[in-house]
Amino acid sequence: MNFEQVDRVRPLVWQDKHLSVLDQRELPHRQIHLVCRTSSEVAEAIHVLAVRGAPAIGIAGAFGVVLAAHAVQADTGAQALQRINAELTALEHARPTAVNLHWAIQRMREKLVDMGADWRDGILRAAQAIQSEDLAANHRMGSFGAECLPDGARVLTHCNTGSLATAGFGTALGVIRAGVASGRITKIYASETRPWLQGSRLTIWELLQDGIPATLIVDSASAYLMQQGLIDTVIVGADRICANGDVANKIGTYAHALAAKAHGVKVMVVAPSSTIDMATATGLGIAIEQRPGTELTHIGGAEIGARAAAVYNPVFDITPAVCIDFLVTEKGVIAAPDAAKMAAVFGSPAGR
Amino acid sequence: MNFEQVDRVRPLVWQDKHLSVLDQRELPHRQIHLVCRTSSEVAEAIHVLAVRGAPAIGIAGAFGVVLAAHAVQADTGAQALQRINAELTALEHARPTAVNLHWAIQRMREKLVDMGADWRDGILRAAQAIQSEDLAANHRMGSFGAECLPDGARVLTHCNTGSLATAGFGTALGVIRAGVASGRITKIYASETRPWLQGSRLTIWELLQDGIPATLIVDSASAYLMQQGLIDTVIVGADRICANGDVANKIGTYAHALAAKAHGVKVMVVAPSSTIDMATATGLGIAIEQRPGTELTHIGGAEIGARAAAVYNPVFDITPAVCIDFLVTEKGVIAAPDAAKMAAVFGSPAGR
Repeated sequence: MNFEQVDRVRPLVWQDKHLSVLDQRELPHRQIHLVCRTSSEVAEAIHVLAVRGAPAIGIAGAFGVVLAAHAVQADTGAQALQRINAELTALEHARPTAVNLHWAIQRMREKLVDMGADWRDGILRAAQAIQSEDLAANHRMGSFGAECLPDGARVLTHCNTGSLATAGFGTALGVIRAGVASGRITKIYASETRPWLQGSRLTIWELLQDGIPATLIVDSASAYLMQQGLIDTVIVGADRICANGDVANKIGTYAHALAAKAHGVKVMVVAPSSTIDMATATGLGIAIEQRPGTELTHIGGAEIGARAAAVYNPVFDITPAVCIDFLVTEKGVIAAPDAAKMAAVFGSPAGR
Repeated sequence: MNFEQVDRVRPLVWQDKHLSVLDQRELPHRQIHLVCRTSSEVAEAIHVLAVRGAPAIGIAGAFGVVLAAHAVQADTGAQALQRINAELTALEHARPTAVNLHWAIQRMREKLVDMGADWRDGILRAAQAIQSEDLAANHRMGSFGAECLPDGARVLTHCNTGSLATAGFGTALGVIRAGVASGRITKIYASETRPWLQGSRLTIWELLQDGIPATLIVDSASAYLMQQGLIDTVIVGADRICANGDVANKIGTYAHALAAKAHGVKVMVVAPSSTIDMATATGLGIAIEQRPGTELTHIGGAEIGARAAAVYNPVFDITPAVCIDFLVTEKGVIAAPDAAKMAAVFGSPAGR
């Protein structure tokens, strides 16, 4: 199999004057593309999860900056930035946990402020660079991560970290694609990922499009599968990685990691360096997004459970660095990450 | 609150010549009662999960024996048993994991074989005794279990272990009812329990009928809640408890228990002694039921995820005794159960 030749779905496509967003709420049943012509439409697409996945959110945010900037009259990038700065802050708050959105908008701000009269073309190229760098990073991470797997690896992945969540190829799913291509992975389990079902709706669908069979399980079955000796490595993405190596990722990641630790199963986190937040010391400093209870009580508009007295729906959790065996970025692999190893690769907060 | 006065829903009601079964597949949206007039109709109701919950399955099985026996001509109970024995074996195989079904049918066999000419009335009374003993056991367990909770306890329960799963009141949910009544429990989390959603469909609904508010979470969030210090005790039921204290229960129980161990949270298992299987040495000897993948990929007939290449759907898991702090039966509480403590209370396999 040559995965480079697979024509993968692209969640975010810049088309002349708008950003086309594949609406992931409708997958896998329908492929609908939303047209975003303003930064607030991009913010809305991010907020409602039409686009999701930390790297993809960052890329969408970068194009949101382009849309905001292109809507104003300005002679220089600095002038444009002054006029859109409040709008960018609103865009930054579309979702709180993934740091990639903040990172991308901040990088776009820094580029814009230095641009002269050609800032209109320049800011578009800056967004396109974020997108193409993410794709390149994914391929590097795929190779790095796959080399850490044992031969005949049986892997579990959670949520969706594939083409849909990135510029293409994927983070954790990129490692899985690379591991399948090299023959190192022999079995893939995908947990369904309640409440939003990114696993059953998106990951299974993406892998099937590549002709890669995966086996769906309920999230809470992973501990049992590990007890049965069916899983060698848990491979997940990340929404934010702190200076000490603590990882915020989709709710359920920590449960998989605890079960892995109890059974000697390896835990691999795969994320581009745009996910690293050296300014946040530990997981305690990460805001965990709370989403509506209807994500649990309804599916496709239909009520599936009892009218609940209350729902608690934190959609991310924190996996402490001590639970992580391999942290894979496009810069390489950190085994058993800690603050010192993180600082050596990503610099100190002050130096950043 | 006086919970004795609450008119709770009854999943199993004997009405003259048939067993009326509240169809739990339709809850909480519709209350439909199935009429079972033969033991094979009871087996079917158990197999399709119209009736579920280990104690309730046992009670249904006992009434299935009554239906089988009442359909034959015989002068004595022994003669009746001879004529229905193959039918009872089929009934016993309706579901493999819960031992209560086997236990109830075996007890009914033993009663029937000793009965004389009045066996028709006698066998009905034997089934009714199983039902009323279960209700009494639940109330005793409720008191025993509640006394093991700390003041102001915040508890998590999984699956449904209430009136719907038993003759009434409940096992783990009985402890929660008793703990709320005595003021010891201040917060209840119910995990939704994929794939069948016993938590969101049944437990939340049952508790709301008692006026007890509970907070719904996804199954995989329990580890995060424990990390946040929000849970003191996990309270669950059981489908089979081995001679060494290993517990088979709804898939996800083991994941909750592992997370509890990692955070110093207590784990309480509540089940009547009909759930004890001293003939099975450890959890390794328990057959784990595999159910159709459509339980994950469909809800209410609608496809919710991608057409999966494969689904692995074990609906129970094994929690090793070492993870259990309190084993509560109607005979009392065993702290940190092991083979010796189990044998002291429930006898050795040979002596049983």
